[in-house]
Amino acid sequence: MNNNQQIVFNKVPEGMPQDDTFKYEDTEVIEPSGHEVQLKTLYISVDPYMRGRMTNVDSYVNPFKQGEPFNGHIVTKVLKSNANEFQEGDIVVGMLPWKKINTVNSQQVNKVPSTDVPLYLYLSVLGMPGQTAYHGLLNIGEPQEGETVVVSAASGAVGSVVGQIAKIKGCKVVGIAGGDKKVSYLTEELNFDGGIDYKKDNFAQALREAVPNGIDVYYENVGGEIGDEVFKHLNTHARIPVCGAISSYNHPEKDIGTRIQGTLIKKQAMMRGFLVAEFADDFKNASEQLAKWVQEGKIKTEVSIEEGFDRVPKAFRNLLTGDNFGKQVIKVADD
Amino acid sequence: MNNNQQIVFNKVPEGMPQDDTFKYEDTEVIEPSGHEVQLKTLYISVDPYMRGRMTNVDSYVNPFKQGEPFNGHIVTKVLKSNANEFQEGDIVVGMLPWKKINTVNSQQVNKVPSTDVPLYLYLSVLGMPGQTAYHGLLNIGEPQEGETVVVSAASGAVGSVVGQIAKIKGCKVVGIAGGDKKVSYLTEELNFDGGIDYKKDNFAQALREAVPNGIDVYYENVGGEIGDEVFKHLNTHARIPVCGAISSYNHPEKDIGTRIQGTLIKKQAMMRGFLVAEFADDFKNASEQLAKWVQEGKIKTEVSIEEGFDRVPKAFRNLLTGDNFGKQVIKVADD
Repeated sequence: MNNNQQIVFNKVPEGMPQDDTFKYEDTEVIEPSGHEVQLKTLYISVDPYMRGRMTNVDSYVNPFKQGEPFNGHIVTKVLKSNANEFQEGDIVVGMLPWKKINTVNSQQVNKVPSTDVPLYLYLSVLGMPGQTAYHGLLNIGEPQEGETVVVSAASGAVGSVVGQIAKIKGCKVVGIAGGDKKVSYLTEELNFDGGIDYKKDNFAQALREAVPNGIDVYYENVGGEIGDEVFKHLNTHARIPVCGAISSYNHPEKDIGTRIQGTLIKKQAMMRGFLVAEFADDFKNASEQLAKWVQEGKIKTEVSIEEGFDRVPKAFRNLLTGDNFGKQVIKVADD
Repeated sequence: MNNNQQIVFNKVPEGMPQDDTFKYEDTEVIEPSGHEVQLKTLYISVDPYMRGRMTNVDSYVNPFKQGEPFNGHIVTKVLKSNANEFQEGDIVVGMLPWKKINTVNSQQVNKVPSTDVPLYLYLSVLGMPGQTAYHGLLNIGEPQEGETVVVSAASGAVGSVVGQIAKIKGCKVVGIAGGDKKVSYLTEELNFDGGIDYKKDNFAQALREAVPNGIDVYYENVGGEIGDEVFKHLNTHARIPVCGAISSYNHPEKDIGTRIQGTLIKKQAMMRGFLVAEFADDFKNASEQLAKWVQEGKIKTEVSIEEGFDRVPKAFRNLLTGDNFGKQVIKVADD
């Protein structure tokens, strides 16, 4: 029976992904066999790094395959289980194809530790973005009490957690975001010490004034001209965890600017790109710590929820333009 | 008595330093008092980093002061000593003004461990360039046996030592240099596994063919388009000690190229700028190890010697154009 639906990688986009990047297809619901579970998709995560996978060349993660479904982190509910460790009704997360109903080996998913929190948190602070924030900041940035930490895309799923962890660690935190609403959120809701609007003409001046003691850690999410401006204020022995470069995702060939070598020497600074998977051995510890901070109210989160499986492409595009606010998820079904 | 001479920083150069960057002045010979020593300059070192000091803005080391003598590493002979720890005839090195005869506090200089080697080696492999090679490669690059190490400005005072240490550590080593003579030197004299001429049209292709297993460590001395080309071949978890960016020293404002963030993420790579002074605690160990390797014939060095105090400006400019070969020193007097 073709009463299932999936979203297939139809065409490699040039620049911003278009409608024809995505193709909706009817597909079968498959009965679980062996150690399989059948899962109903509840929430789909869209994340900026996915743009890098929409290519037919070597990318920093495996490219999506044309003609096959996209995949990403999804929160699901077990409809049927053929595996001992899961039961009907369990809430599980995993890296799964964009289908309304998936049937996969039980090893591909993990049960959520608690269902007392909104389930979409497992796609943000209690999921991959939270881990990305945690490990990039603490293991690469190594912020010390009293230091100045700057984070770009600061109201986003990763950036907002980076800044809040840095506050917990006793740092002065300045966030960069686009638009009044996001910037106010940083200082008024998240208690950042400063918020800078990169869309304003006075961005360079506002940034300079916000970091009178220079910058010790710059958590890089956007690259481009924003990054160039931040680099002017690095302190000696600054650390730059490089998580993303959203500004260039649609046009990497146009990502031209001042080369960084001179600045790195001058400041004896360190820049390191990373993928969160490097830190898999420490995911469990980080999860527990993040859950504790959320429970204690030390980490707040914001979410943009689009409703309906048909809204996935739009929600993804909102990420790349900065039109969303906080973590972007798509609610596909009630749990 | 004005029978001494010094070279003063006369004018901030635009681009390549010109004749009027340097000004020769007669000056006094000063008698040592207190804990001072009077020193006859034997060998003056000129090094690419000095271009960065010829500025009136914030630089990565203290800028030279206009109207005052340049300074740098110099090998000298003690003419008169008012300090217990030195005697007439001792050979000492230090960071000293460019004068024929210096009179300084004895704490500014150190006795060389041995005079059985050519004294100019204390300005190359047994001096600051050797330390720079050693710490940048071993402490930041952390090369492992069997890995591929690429070094630019590979026939120079730093690069040649980097490559030879990497060979000692069991790495495959590819050097980048300009011109047949330098490239032949790398493979025929220093036993590098490959030498690439960046001045040739086929540079990109030759580099690609020379690193079939990719690049694990890139010791960066030059930056610019050479660096851009090297970055295309980085392996996952590559390390890039950034020692210099010679290509941009004369025109830092024109140092424009592809931003590095995307590559660093894709390769989970680390780039770190450094100054050798960071590793001062380990200088002694490194000196002993380097001296041992030189004695065992495991590290060879090449030197370009200009003769005469009047040749300093020319020798310095040769560095920036690549017209010298190996470590550039100026012999000012016989010992």
